[in-house]
Amino acid sequence: MTNVSYTESLLKSFENYLQVIQWQKSPLSLYQPVDYILSLGGKRIRPLSILYINGLLKGPSQIALHTAYALELFHNFSLIHDDIMDQALLRRSQPTVHQKFGTNNAILSGDVMMIDAMGFILKAETESGILGLQQVFIETARQVCEGQAMDMDFELRQRVSYPEYLDMIRLKTAVLLAAGFKMAALISDRPELADDFYLTGINTGIAFQLEDDWLDFYADKQTSGKVKGGDIIQSKKSALILELAEQFNPLELENFIEWYNPMQDPEAKLRRMEHYFDEFGIKEKLRNRIKLYQQKAYDCLEQLALTSEQKELMYQFIKGIFSRTS
Amino acid sequence: MTNVSYTESLLKSFENYLQVIQWQKSPLSLYQPVDYILSLGGKRIRPLSILYINGLLKGPSQIALHTAYALELFHNFSLIHDDIMDQALLRRSQPTVHQKFGTNNAILSGDVMMIDAMGFILKAETESGILGLQQVFIETARQVCEGQAMDMDFELRQRVSYPEYLDMIRLKTAVLLAAGFKMAALISDRPELADDFYLTGINTGIAFQLEDDWLDFYADKQTSGKVKGGDIIQSKKSALILELAEQFNPLELENFIEWYNPMQDPEAKLRRMEHYFDEFGIKEKLRNRIKLYQQKAYDCLEQLALTSEQKELMYQFIKGIFSRTS
Repeated sequence: MTNVSYTESLLKSFENYLQVIQWQKSPLSLYQPVDYILSLGGKRIRPLSILYINGLLKGPSQIALHTAYALELFHNFSLIHDDIMDQALLRRSQPTVHQKFGTNNAILSGDVMMIDAMGFILKAETESGILGLQQVFIETARQVCEGQAMDMDFELRQRVSYPEYLDMIRLKTAVLLAAGFKMAALISDRPELADDFYLTGINTGIAFQLEDDWLDFYADKQTSGKVKGGDIIQSKKSALILELAEQFNPLELENFIEWYNPMQDPEAKLRRMEHYFDEFGIKEKLRNRIKLYQQKAYDCLEQLALTSEQKELMYQFIKGIFSRTS
Repeated sequence: MTNVSYTESLLKSFENYLQVIQWQKSPLSLYQPVDYILSLGGKRIRPLSILYINGLLKGPSQIALHTAYALELFHNFSLIHDDIMDQALLRRSQPTVHQKFGTNNAILSGDVMMIDAMGFILKAETESGILGLQQVFIETARQVCEGQAMDMDFELRQRVSYPEYLDMIRLKTAVLLAAGFKMAALISDRPELADDFYLTGINTGIAFQLEDDWLDFYADKQTSGKVKGGDIIQSKKSALILELAEQFNPLELENFIEWYNPMQDPEAKLRRMEHYFDEFGIKEKLRNRIKLYQQKAYDCLEQLALTSEQKELMYQFIKGIFSRTS
């Protein structure tokens, strides 16, 4: 079986699991939004990571499916609440949960998904008898909230430094992926690998998020399906902007910030930003930074006490995450 | 020591615990709202229940404080999110969290409180080695969400039956108190009492909530500090309304519902409702129903395998909850 068809078979096992999981369907107003967002699909990177690593280390198990499901529930809970906070209209090209079901139902359905996520981690821990899953999960969940709070804080601030930004995306995005990598090692009876897997996941997650920022402006429009420069139109302090800010002297930076933050004509703003990015080679600069974190992820992977065959499979998997094909 | 000074000493130990618990204070935007709502105080019935029952069965313990804190965190998480959904302006005579800190911070701070509640239950379970606390807690948390969803659904419906209403308040209010009673038995190494304590808590919680509905219209204004008839002004289907609805024939009920649901002049509405309540003896009818659930709670208590002295202390405690003095 090739690596691609293997990940496809894992995804299929996860979708089957989703079908079998019986959500208690009453009250409908609470559980319909849960079905809705889970049915929107997405790349399922977090649950897939659990299943892939567990398959690689030990062979597929029901415990891994519980853990994968908990991670996907938690991730989607955070999407629902983030979309309310961002007043986002669309998620995966469909109406966001609060647009479709109203904000009150979106808050509450998010809440119950997070509770259920804890329930499935408890189930995994109880059935496997492996302690520590919940500790990892709860600590991670708290960090994701902290990352989201930092992200909201940044919106209100004039300036954000690159280290602050990297810390924010570590918390908001990377720790959940890393926790998945770590829990996969734990449920595969390889606790000695847990910390190295975690670090691999952190660097993978940071590279992944930086790439997301890069793609906001440089994605092939036809394949991404997203509005080009959405972050810039909303005056977000994305990695591209922080990369640019590093090129300015203090006065230039002040002038830039004054111009960048207010709402303005999107077309004109994007044109001017493109000019800036070209002038300072930002496309390549951020690309290099992404490569740096990808390389860190590969270096961590190299440290892992795995067979060379397992390493190669992990390498393929992480490469798939980076190229957005896995 | 009298019972009153005993509960006061327990409350003091809880407030001391709150002082000692070190919330990680960064980002402030996430943790300030948590401090704020916890500092508003309130009767602390849920944590007090844990401490009181644990003290009664086994003697005070740190585990009980962790458990009590988790319950209070969870309760306050639910208040923050409910207040957003209800667009409430005040909580304990102070601005609600979303009024003071904005809706986005209120959503996210609520989320982190719920996560932390799970963390403290895990801490209690890990330190005590008593399994089952988390199962009870997660199941209860899910039910509280279901109760809140039913409550929101009821707002949109023309009619709600009394059994449906009782089921809603069981989930929204009673199960959390009952879970506290049950967990108190578990952490006191008396698992054989868990189910009877739970049932005692359910009936206590239902009586407590029905009394809340009664007090909305019949509280001594000066002592309650609340607007008289707030539920009625907002056209809520409270126990008083459901009690009244039982007195009407189908046609009368239809006419009543058509009149009751739309917004209208508060003074006139309250006057007419007072007339209805007097005509059908609703004040006494609901009072009798409250007494029925209080009696059920006492009957459950009587079933508990406790010493007569312990029973007397529990009786005093529950009586205190009913009279809102504990």
